[in-house]
Amino acid sequence: VTFLTTDHQSLTTPMMKSVDEQLEILRRGTEQIEPADGLRKKLEKNLKTGKPLRVKYGIDPTGIDVHLGHTVPLRKLRQFQELGHKAVLIIGDYTALIGDPSGRDETRARLTPEQVEVNAADYLKQIGRIIDLSKAEVRKNSEWFSRFTFLDTTSLAGRTTIQRLLERDDFAKRFKARPESVPIYLHECLYPLMQGHDSVAIQADIELGGSEQLFNLMMGRRLQEAASQEPQVCLTMPILRGLDGDKKMGKSLGNYIGVGMSADDQFAKTMSLADEPMKEWFTLLTDRPATEIEKLTDPNQTHPMEAKKTLGRDVVTFYHGADAAAAAQANWEKQFSERKDPDNIPEATVPAGDVGLPQLLVTVGFCKSNNEARNRITEGAVSIGPERTKLTDPKGTVKVEDGLVLRLGSKKIVRLRIG
Amino acid sequence: VTFLTTDHQSLTTPMMKSVDEQLEILRRGTEQIEPADGLRKKLEKNLKTGKPLRVKYGIDPTGIDVHLGHTVPLRKLRQFQELGHKAVLIIGDYTALIGDPSGRDETRARLTPEQVEVNAADYLKQIGRIIDLSKAEVRKNSEWFSRFTFLDTTSLAGRTTIQRLLERDDFAKRFKARPESVPIYLHECLYPLMQGHDSVAIQADIELGGSEQLFNLMMGRRLQEAASQEPQVCLTMPILRGLDGDKKMGKSLGNYIGVGMSADDQFAKTMSLADEPMKEWFTLLTDRPATEIEKLTDPNQTHPMEAKKTLGRDVVTFYHGADAAAAAQANWEKQFSERKDPDNIPEATVPAGDVGLPQLLVTVGFCKSNNEARNRITEGAVSIGPERTKLTDPKGTVKVEDGLVLRLGSKKIVRLRIG
Repeated sequence: VTFLTTDHQSLTTPMMKSVDEQLEILRRGTEQIEPADGLRKKLEKNLKTGKPLRVKYGIDPTGIDVHLGHTVPLRKLRQFQELGHKAVLIIGDYTALIGDPSGRDETRARLTPEQVEVNAADYLKQIGRIIDLSKAEVRKNSEWFSRFTFLDTTSLAGRTTIQRLLERDDFAKRFKARPESVPIYLHECLYPLMQGHDSVAIQADIELGGSEQLFNLMMGRRLQEAASQEPQVCLTMPILRGLDGDKKMGKSLGNYIGVGMSADDQFAKTMSLADEPMKEWFTLLTDRPATEIEKLTDPNQTHPMEAKKTLGRDVVTFYHGADAAAAAQANWEKQFSERKDPDNIPEATVPAGDVGLPQLLVTVGFCKSNNEARNRITEGAVSIGPERTKLTDPKGTVKVEDGLVLRLGSKKIVRLRIG
Repeated sequence: VTFLTTDHQSLTTPMMKSVDEQLEILRRGTEQIEPADGLRKKLEKNLKTGKPLRVKYGIDPTGIDVHLGHTVPLRKLRQFQELGHKAVLIIGDYTALIGDPSGRDETRARLTPEQVEVNAADYLKQIGRIIDLSKAEVRKNSEWFSRFTFLDTTSLAGRTTIQRLLERDDFAKRFKARPESVPIYLHECLYPLMQGHDSVAIQADIELGGSEQLFNLMMGRRLQEAASQEPQVCLTMPILRGLDGDKKMGKSLGNYIGVGMSADDQFAKTMSLADEPMKEWFTLLTDRPATEIEKLTDPNQTHPMEAKKTLGRDVVTFYHGADAAAAAQANWEKQFSERKDPDNIPEATVPAGDVGLPQLLVTVGFCKSNNEARNRITEGAVSIGPERTKLTDPKGTVKVEDGLVLRLGSKKIVRLRIG
């Protein structure tokens, strides 16, 4: 897999790969391919005809900071590009104009055409860090939907049923919610049909999306069949978990890394990643082979911190290049070592049990009087423990434990010993 | 109620009536008025402003033979006209163009604009027998829907939810059908919204419909409220049962009387009406006061056949005038008396039990030989019993019962006696 570079700026002329070689690359990290043998057939057709596969990815121009979670399908799209296929980006500008006529959802406020234009340009600029925009086909769905009449719309609506729509996970959940069903507005039912019709309009061979998109992607197949087109193959990617290793990466949860962040920020945030999702991140955010990832995520073979540094370098290299990645690592290491407690910490013997904080500061010799101690506490100079938890209550007490480290400012440090 | 004529051609200048007088006329035979006090308020507003109420009735131009069942709401519309209000007929020409894009329903085949035009003209001609078209406002809903964009359509769709739509009786039934749910296509969900928007477009004060229309009528209220209009009052009329007194009147069931039928046909068919629905027919198809209907439908006060003759005259008078009604009754009575068996029927004594039909004809003296009998049977000349059931099988047998009447052609008749 030598040509699969992690430096996005160097998308070179694709090498011809066999169907099996392409399948190995494309299947890596995917969640579902529908139908299962569809991708192979499309690739075989491509080899026979020489016509690149048209690989669709839809974008919602509602104003988004693109983060690593978004890049999972985008990186797959880039792989298709690297294999010589055509990335077709659909900007859902017409969908964004609809907003939420029910007035129910503030996040789906109806956007003006100007806002949509600005958002779309901003979004493209961001994802230009992942795919090669110069080789992509970028289409807006207003191109076809602005010409739709009421008749065209009802004709589209006639392609699906209430029953089928209620099979979609989010609709099903809202419909079955108790004690009260959560309203599903009728215009929302048109969104999957719009997304499906986009596939008809651009004659997609493949559509990429997150795993929650499978229903909408399958709608594309249905509508293409109704339009006598060869239906697209649906390829879904797993949802990336955020830095907490628990929830889906998202801006509102603060557990994300933005593609527009500085090299230092991206590296430091990667270093704060929980251990558990590391394998998933390596798989979905780097091109490292599975065997290597196995070695990197086995604590007996690689120390988790070293593995995380490798991950951090990979992430930063992709967005800022190898030099910036090395520099970001050095910066992080320097800060980390500065924050480290010195090897030899002076010790002080104190009685066990609860003790008033000002008195403790006097006992260990940090302050000359309770009064001075209270002032330092109030100004936030006192911290405790490995997390350097700040203690700011001058009336507070400390439960003394053997080995507990107490700090005053950045210079004074002492390890407590029970005497 | 002298001015409430049953002759549709003489709609005269309306007399000013008080709200209570109008309410008495308008409430007669209605099933539901929603909201209950709404009609009174609208009538009071009309008296105050002098502006006639706009009373909407929607027509589906899919090619219909208008029958008495359809006339129930149309007669109510005529009453509004007689009281000086404005009938507004909506021809759903745009709705008819949609048809059924799912290809599921042959009766909702997509019509061409030409077909819609022909059907609409034919329909108007037919209902011109019930309401005064010269005083009605006739609108086609293509007037507004042909200008709808995709955005307008989704905006309309956003006014309702899947949950609310599934409250509509027919949708609810299909959704809950077992063992398999019956598909509800998404375009069907747009129909109630279209009907509702028609009310917005013409600023309806009242909408009339059959009882199964209540959901759609209420949608009009909702959409008018959303458009800051005073919502319409919904007035539903009961469904008329057909000649069998059992099922809803309908062409496919053959239990109907068409408004375009001849006076003779209308009268004769009314005479074949079951006794049970007579009161309902008097109430919904004539203007006779309730006290009179009570008398007509009480078998102790009026013989059912006499009541039915009155009903038949009323029906025919409305469509063909009083003279034609009298003539139709006379024709029917003549035929009826001709069909009656003579007072003195010759008798013939035969053995009890099953007997071959040809042999029976010879025994009673109708035929000279079994051969002649078989020929007459084959040509359909033999009938039996009060229903004059034809017997056409020369190998058939008859179970002889005392008093059974046997006929050959229209002249020979005999009553069998067991000997």
